Amino acid sequence: MPDTHRLSPSTPIRIDEVSSRGKDFHDDRDEAEKEFYSLRNELIEWQRKLYAEGKQKLLVVLQAMDAGGKDGTIRHAFKGVNPQGVRVTSFKKPSELELAHDFLWRIHKAVPAKGMIGVFNRSHYEDVLVVRVHNIVPKSVWQPRYEVINQFEKHLVDSGTTILKFFLHISKKEQRERMQDRLDQPDKHWKFDVDDLNKRAQWDDYQLAFQDMLNNCTTEHAPWYLIPADQKWYRNLAIMRTMVDTLKEMNPQYPTSEDLSGITIND
Amino acid sequence: MPDTHRLSPSTPIRIDEVSSRGKDFHDDRDEAEKEFYSLRNELIEWQRKLYAEGKQKLLVVLQAMDAGGKDGTIRHAFKGVNPQGVRVTSFKKPSELELAHDFLWRIHKAVPAKGMIGVFNRSHYEDVLVVRVHNIVPKSVWQPRYEVINQFEKHLVDSGTTILKFFLHISKKEQRERMQDRLDQPDKHWKFDVDDLNKRAQWDDYQLAFQDMLNNCTTEHAPWYLIPADQKWYRNLAIMRTMVDTLKEMNPQYPTSEDLSGITIND
Repeated sequence: MPDTHRLSPSTPIRIDEVSSRGKDFHDDRDEAEKEFYSLRNELIEWQRKLYAEGKQKLLVVLQAMDAGGKDGTIRHAFKGVNPQGVRVTSFKKPSELELAHDFLWRIHKAVPAKGMIGVFNRSHYEDVLVVRVHNIVPKSVWQPRYEVINQFEKHLVDSGTTILKFFLHISKKEQRERMQDRLDQPDKHWKFDVDDLNKRAQWDDYQLAFQDMLNNCTTEHAPWYLIPADQKWYRNLAIMRTMVDTLKEMNPQYPTSEDLSGITIND
Repeated sequence: MPDTHRLSPSTPIRIDEVSSRGKDFHDDRDEAEKEFYSLRNELIEWQRKLYAEGKQKLLVVLQAMDAGGKDGTIRHAFKGVNPQGVRVTSFKKPSELELAHDFLWRIHKAVPAKGMIGVFNRSHYEDVLVVRVHNIVPKSVWQPRYEVINQFEKHLVDSGTTILKFFLHISKKEQRERMQDRLDQPDKHWKFDVDDLNKRAQWDDYQLAFQDMLNNCTTEHAPWYLIPADQKWYRNLAIMRTMVDTLKEMNPQYPTSEDLSGITIND
């Protein structure tokens, strides 16, 4: 399945031709959830080895429309993983200090160290998404960023980071339902931002910006995964499978040492 | 129970008079574990509210001898808590850049933001512990730090941070057993540091440094908790109870808004 959703550098996609329905890829929710929990236990084990080994780094990037499920993915996928080995960074509207630097400055500071899993809730891709759609900078500024991002990610990969980029693809109808939930349920009010309505009003512009992001920044070293995300249970499973498969390939191991054999502990 | 282990500013302790045995405080391991899991579910809920509310901050500081259980405490206590709301910082031997600043510089950068739980695996207290025992700076430098730390923590508390400081108290015998485990079990080799033996050789000096730390930096605004930590199940319970009781007192709530009542979602 992971390969099902991995985009290919040689095959550009049209986002409106890709289903956002997990149901189109899996027809048994109970089975999917069972597999998800089992894989999460594997993730927990792999993370321990990654941390113990202390050599490799995993970076997980999440992008989506508002209410696309970024927070929920993090909460479900990393539940039970030792927080000492996971660092989540949520990139909000940049501060004045951040704006006084290049757009990758705040990103670079947050990339994972050896042994760590770094999770980006939004990322440098905001600088070719919101920034583009709302004309915060002219095209002559955001257009070259795709290539800059590809080079930046190449550098991270060459320096021992594995990068997984997930675009959570939801339908406009699904977004409406989730937003309505936030309005209706008092304990979800805090997730509702009136500004999200303005972004919803520019849905098509955003979809185009996402499509260009996916097509321009799917590289051999850091491809995008286009995850059908209308059904949360399928989204969770698809992302979890990809993470576990990736960690299996990274294959971190507990480091052992012959040098410890002669040691005795002083009293 | 939480109050059992909370130190009082007016009552200095002698560390060699305090039991490191959880068994002296609780006689039923099964029951303790059951309570621990139940409290952890409460912690998970409180963390969600803390994050949603986005106003208060909780800082958890862990100090102990090597193999005292800092890593294990974090792994067990925060298992299941949303990593988006928890940020663990492990303070290792300072870098050259960190040493070029005052000792609180790297600490201050890592304190939790609004809505967050920050966990310090080691902390600013290293600067009155390892630094003192190994004479890295003279007494004229480390002695005034107790007061500087108290003032720093007061400032954090006045700025909306609740601070919980846990000293994990283990016996020298327990440390030996845990170190031997690390030598004997290949998947624990990575936790063994030959330098830990040097620190063990100065056990008494360290105990004295811890004692002074506990007595000098137990304040009304940020008391130390002296946790008997020879039995991990008791250590986990004692810390969990204290965290949950503290969050109950902080009482974060999902913010609700009347202003959302008239809103309709555009198509």
